[in-house]
Amino acid sequence: MVDDAISRLQGLRDEPVWQPMPDAMKAEFHGPPPTDPAPLEAVYADVKNKLYPHAMGNIHPRFLAWYMGAGCLTGALADFLAAIDGSNLGGGDTGANQVDRQVTDWLRQMMGFPEGASGTLVNGGSMANIVGLTAARNAMAGVDLHTQSVADIGAPLRFYASDQVHSCHMKAMNLLGVGCAGLTRIATDDTFRMDLDALRAAIQADRSQGVRPACVIATAGTTNTGSIDPLPEIADLCREESIWLHVDGCIGALFSIAPANRHLVAGIEKADSLALDLHKGLHAPFDVGCALLRDQKAHRATFAENAEYLQVATRGLAAAEFLHDYGLETTRGFRALKVWMMLRHHGVETFGRILDHNIAQALHLTALIDAAPELELMAPTSTTVVCFRHVPGGLDEAELCAHNTEIMLRIQESGIAVITDTTIRGRHCLRVAICNHRTKDEDIDLLVQEVLRIGAEMTPVGVVDDA
Amino acid sequence: MVDDAISRLQGLRDEPVWQPMPDAMKAEFHGPPPTDPAPLEAVYADVKNKLYPHAMGNIHPRFLAWYMGAGCLTGALADFLAAIDGSNLGGGDTGANQVDRQVTDWLRQMMGFPEGASGTLVNGGSMANIVGLTAARNAMAGVDLHTQSVADIGAPLRFYASDQVHSCHMKAMNLLGVGCAGLTRIATDDTFRMDLDALRAAIQADRSQGVRPACVIATAGTTNTGSIDPLPEIADLCREESIWLHVDGCIGALFSIAPANRHLVAGIEKADSLALDLHKGLHAPFDVGCALLRDQKAHRATFAENAEYLQVATRGLAAAEFLHDYGLETTRGFRALKVWMMLRHHGVETFGRILDHNIAQALHLTALIDAAPELELMAPTSTTVVCFRHVPGGLDEAELCAHNTEIMLRIQESGIAVITDTTIRGRHCLRVAICNHRTKDEDIDLLVQEVLRIGAEMTPVGVVDDA
Ligand SMILES: Cc1ncc(COP(=O)(O)O)c(C=O)c1O
Ligand SMILES: Cc1ncc(COP(=O)(O)O)c(C=O)c1O
Repeated sequence: MVDDAISRLQGLRDEPVWQPMPDAMKAEFHGPPPTDPAPLEAVYADVKNKLYPHAMGNIHPRFLAWYMGAGCLTGALADFLAAIDGSNLGGGDTGANQVDRQVTDWLRQMMGFPEGASGTLVNGGSMANIVGLTAARNAMAGVDLHTQSVADIGAPLRFYASDQVHSCHMKAMNLLGVGCAGLTRIATDDTFRMDLDALRAAIQADRSQGVRPACVIATAGTTNTGSIDPLPEIADLCREESIWLHVDGCIGALFSIAPANRHLVAGIEKADSLALDLHKGLHAPFDVGCALLRDQKAHRATFAENAEYLQVATRGLAAAEFLHDYGLETTRGFRALKVWMMLRHHGVETFGRILDHNIAQALHLTALIDAAPELELMAPTSTTVVCFRHVPGGLDEAELCAHNTEIMLRIQESGIAVITDTTIRGRHCLRVAICNHRTKDEDIDLLVQEVLRIGAEMTPVGVVDDA
Repeated sequence: MVDDAISRLQGLRDEPVWQPMPDAMKAEFHGPPPTDPAPLEAVYADVKNKLYPHAMGNIHPRFLAWYMGAGCLTGALADFLAAIDGSNLGGGDTGANQVDRQVTDWLRQMMGFPEGASGTLVNGGSMANIVGLTAARNAMAGVDLHTQSVADIGAPLRFYASDQVHSCHMKAMNLLGVGCAGLTRIATDDTFRMDLDALRAAIQADRSQGVRPACVIATAGTTNTGSIDPLPEIADLCREESIWLHVDGCIGALFSIAPANRHLVAGIEKADSLALDLHKGLHAPFDVGCALLRDQKAHRATFAENAEYLQVATRGLAAAEFLHDYGLETTRGFRALKVWMMLRHHGVETFGRILDHNIAQALHLTALIDAAPELELMAPTSTTVVCFRHVPGGLDEAELCAHNTEIMLRIQESGIAVITDTTIRGRHCLRVAICNHRTKDEDIDLLVQEVLRIGAEMTPVGVVDDA
């Protein structure tokens, strides 16, 4: 299995990025649960022959879609070792606990958070945001939300985020009982950064109407365009106004370790809570994210419950703080191990260089787009996300959408690359996100060539009639 | 690494279950993040030499504490393979997606849920409960909680659970903005099952006071004693009263596949939502749990948000329903693979037999306790949890607590076994939870011998003065 894995990773570049599974093969994945045992070899053969060829492709050098890490062998081995170690990171005086604490402390230092700040590893950016936003809500509520309801909060709480904020925050508002009506979307400027005056005005308007401004959600690296909200200014405003600052750094927080680009996220260390994603910019296998909180006491107060069957002791296995007092999970896997092994094996500097390189590649792609008359850049490139479209001329917006959708699908179906699409200020476009330690500059060049080739090949009006 | 893993698993019985890490070794887990690379061999040597010997021990045959699975090699290999496959289970038309859908469908069938019911794999029982309870809250709210706040719900919602309910439900009440004041704790009978009359009375009292009964949380396998709430009767009551029935089946749901004991959880298939834990009774490595929901539409309506950069297509990689519309995560690891490989490799019947055997072992332990005059059973043994204490005579409750705590710690520190403690109806006791496919009947015998030996060895009053 390990040999197969190594040759899979080594041979990736020559394989299609993604291929759909044929319907006949899909049909095999139906039926009743297996009652009897089967040889492990047979089960593994299915993984190798049916799953690998129809995997998502995000470990491939030309996977440039959504925003995912590309995985790595050390991380995969670590997932195996974590399962063999077996420890439950809900708590306990174990070596695994030491590793978990060390990883969150490393991340704290990498993000410039003060000593004493706390952190918890969760299974992704969405959960890291939920942890931060729950702490924000509870700290700002003025009543104890362990016992009381959101309905018991006198003046309703208000959260603020830009119109570019990730959808997981809407999910969080729903979860927290605040609702999206409690989340004011602030307009962004031409570079898709939160407009500070608009934020200030919204806060003042709310105060004058008896609404309590509770938390600004700033995004360091938006999903649509990779833009970074003006963190230092937002931090100052939050301090003046006594508002909690949560930063969604799922895309951008790790730029803090990228020598040439760390200035882009200066101010991130002023956040009260910060969500970061290790399965994106650090390429840990799915899934692992981290929530950092400036105030350890507020963090613990948000999540700790007392249970008679979970007592901390001064000796024995339970002689350690329960880590599940810092998040929603009770049992927690040893996802710290992959981050620990990867950081030790490759070193922080390696990861910083990869991030710098991905940003440089995004700028390289932007230059290619600028140089091609058929291509139109749809948003300024701030970091690692590039939005553009193929514009053959003579097409209206709806036709352009159909035309570019078809380009995207043909690129995906051909196996050349995976890119996706989005809609920016009402206009559809292709979207390339470069978060990949395997991508070479030639991969970017090839992508542009293929977009131009497919775009030119398509009879602009003829092909769109099924759209 | 794989060879080491196999010999570790084979040699477990002769190793201590758990040993504390010396302080000097703990001190090594401090310091700044590693800037430079290090050889993988050196990193792995630390895993082998520092982590394995100080792991939690839950993979050991005499780990009988809290309630955890014991892991398994197939599951560990699957975690490696999942990382090599790399797919993100947030969505996408991939083989991994087929496996994920197949695993939840197998679980649906194993639990007797109707066709069309939906499910989502999450990272444990706590999250599975949160998924179910969020769906319950949203379905019963009468307002759209995506946009509106819990404060906009007219009559406050009320949840009900027994006084034995797991603490993760209190965390969930906090998270959902309901607060524990919105969770009525219903008394339990002598066998620690929810008292149906008390539940009925609480519901009527609430209705008469303008409170809206929303959801009963029944527990199939309580953490303290392993008791199972009267599921068929509670289900009938919920139907009559139009109340959502959520079953916390983290411990007991899988008894549905245990031939000799499935009758204990009859009625579980009537739940509107069910949380089950695959890293407990199925021994999948941490972490993986599952939420099943009877009403697929209500499930999706609870969590689906629309995002412009996450569009489902009719072709290409995004030509599949987004799985993140069924839970809180966006990116989701391929945790389905370990469940799929384990169920295929070992077959459902094997797991059912192990569960039956663990229940038989709990009864065997109970018989040994009944036969030993120094031991007192503290709760009837319903399933796999046994509560008892060593009673040398002449000690009051506080002294008994100190005496038994010391027994527990010495057993842990000696490496013979790991058991924990709890407090039942105000009385402290030792707690043994048997969820382990490696435990033999001799292990149970040895545990009882050791409790008796250590209990007798201790000068009952002398040793308690540091308590
Ligand atoms: C800005 C931002 N926040 C949050 C998330 C969610 O992170 P995850 O997918 O790890 O849950 C994403 C995912 O792409 C993101 O881009
Ligand atoms: C009854 C019950 N519910 C929920 C949980 C929480 O499950 P997890 O630890 O997988 O989050 C447990 C854990 O032991 C439990 O016993």
